Amino acid sequence: MRAFGGQVASQALAAAGAEVDPAQRPTSLHAYFVRAGDTTRPITYSAEAVDEGPTSSIRRVTATQSGKAILTLEASFRGPDADEPTWPESPEPVSMPDLEQAADDVSRWAPAGSPAAQWLEEQSKRMRFELRFAGIPAFLAGHNGRALRGQRFWLRTLDPLLDAPLQHACALTYVSDLYLVSTALAKHGIGRRRTGVAAASLDHTVWFHRPFRVDEWVLYEQRSPTSAGGRGLSAGRILNQAGEVIATVRQEVLLRVSGS
Amino acid sequence: MRAFGGQVASQALAAAGAEVDPAQRPTSLHAYFVRAGDTTRPITYSAEAVDEGPTSSIRRVTATQSGKAILTLEASFRGPDADEPTWPESPEPVSMPDLEQAADDVSRWAPAGSPAAQWLEEQSKRMRFELRFAGIPAFLAGHNGRALRGQRFWLRTLDPLLDAPLQHACALTYVSDLYLVSTALAKHGIGRRRTGVAAASLDHTVWFHRPFRVDEWVLYEQRSPTSAGGRGLSAGRILNQAGEVIATVRQEVLLRVSGS
Repeated sequence: MRAFGGQVASQALAAAGAEVDPAQRPTSLHAYFVRAGDTTRPITYSAEAVDEGPTSSIRRVTATQSGKAILTLEASFRGPDADEPTWPESPEPVSMPDLEQAADDVSRWAPAGSPAAQWLEEQSKRMRFELRFAGIPAFLAGHNGRALRGQRFWLRTLDPLLDAPLQHACALTYVSDLYLVSTALAKHGIGRRRTGVAAASLDHTVWFHRPFRVDEWVLYEQRSPTSAGGRGLSAGRILNQAGEVIATVRQEVLLRVSGS
Repeated sequence: MRAFGGQVASQALAAAGAEVDPAQRPTSLHAYFVRAGDTTRPITYSAEAVDEGPTSSIRRVTATQSGKAILTLEASFRGPDADEPTWPESPEPVSMPDLEQAADDVSRWAPAGSPAAQWLEEQSKRMRFELRFAGIPAFLAGHNGRALRGQRFWLRTLDPLLDAPLQHACALTYVSDLYLVSTALAKHGIGRRRTGVAAASLDHTVWFHRPFRVDEWVLYEQRSPTSAGGRGLSAGRILNQAGEVIATVRQEVLLRVSGS
């Protein structure tokens, strides 16, 4: 079975941070998905230091299977001063969807017992994440042939996490890879599993702006600003319940529609 | 003298692409600025293949001075099929500032003979790029203590370039590093050279969406969507004269104001 890219990126970030002073938090990661991983075989993560200092580090990780690279990742860590308020902040005004309303929305577009509800429940259990879509999800919009400019969903882990910034960053990295391909497709009213559609994630970038917990509800907003020449850029930002941006996500996706 | 980050990134992209089939165009690059480069000493660029295929490659480059990394870069190349129109495009509606009007704007905020005009002229000659700001530039806004949400400028090389996509990508990478720090500062009405302000570029990412020439006028739009904890994210997109997005740029910057 094809490995979930977010899982490989998440494990690579864990490998990158394993030998970094825990006082240094992850501030960003840049990854390329080189080829599909295979869940039936072990993945080897090799980490090396590009730079190591008392308040910042940069690490590089290569994930390989049978000697071939499946992912390459570079990550940056800063601290303990990284979170000092040495700069005027000016949060952008944001409109947050209501969390309880989102729970109602889910039951409207995916009624209990429907295939969509079952699929979401299975996915939630497998990933150990709870998801609540505010409005229609991209994967359903695409299947209905309806173009969608973007989507938003609340998420949190099903299980509590430790008070370790690296663990929360790894969990957020895992879930940050969800639906970015669907979002790029849904912009054109195309479903992920439509015949003749081939799509894959090419790279993945996350900037972590503020301390956060992902075992508390956070909001993930996704859209796709640009596509051309068989490639699209998907964009995400993740906010805490106070409406502060905790992470920014970018992913380029490969898009092919045969016969179009 | 401190090396210009865009120049190091540009040369690293040239090193990454040097042994790639020219039919494969650069599609993206991800770089970390590890430490400041020194223009009085040679820089060594070491390139290695992460993956090589008939239609795509990923290369990794480390730029070092005296054995220490100053920049690390990974770049992706695709082709010759990468530009096939296998996907519906839906260009976003954009409002393009007039090129001739921009020339008039420049002479208004930087009258001939003024320090700003002289500075711009010297910079233009040194970089071999012509710049025309549409509206007030971030570096002036910051110095005036005026907050600015973003800036736009037209640019092109002073010299014609070859019909080689890699050369245009390297030239665009060079110039893409301009003013992203100023933009993050200007958002808060702070000038680049104000006493007590320390700022530096941390990383740099460029996605190349379409074929382009940079010896013809292109428009660079810059803004800074987020800042927190002494770090800001600057965002750019570069459009051709038809209003198509040819590149997307992201850069995280370190921001410190002492005594604030």
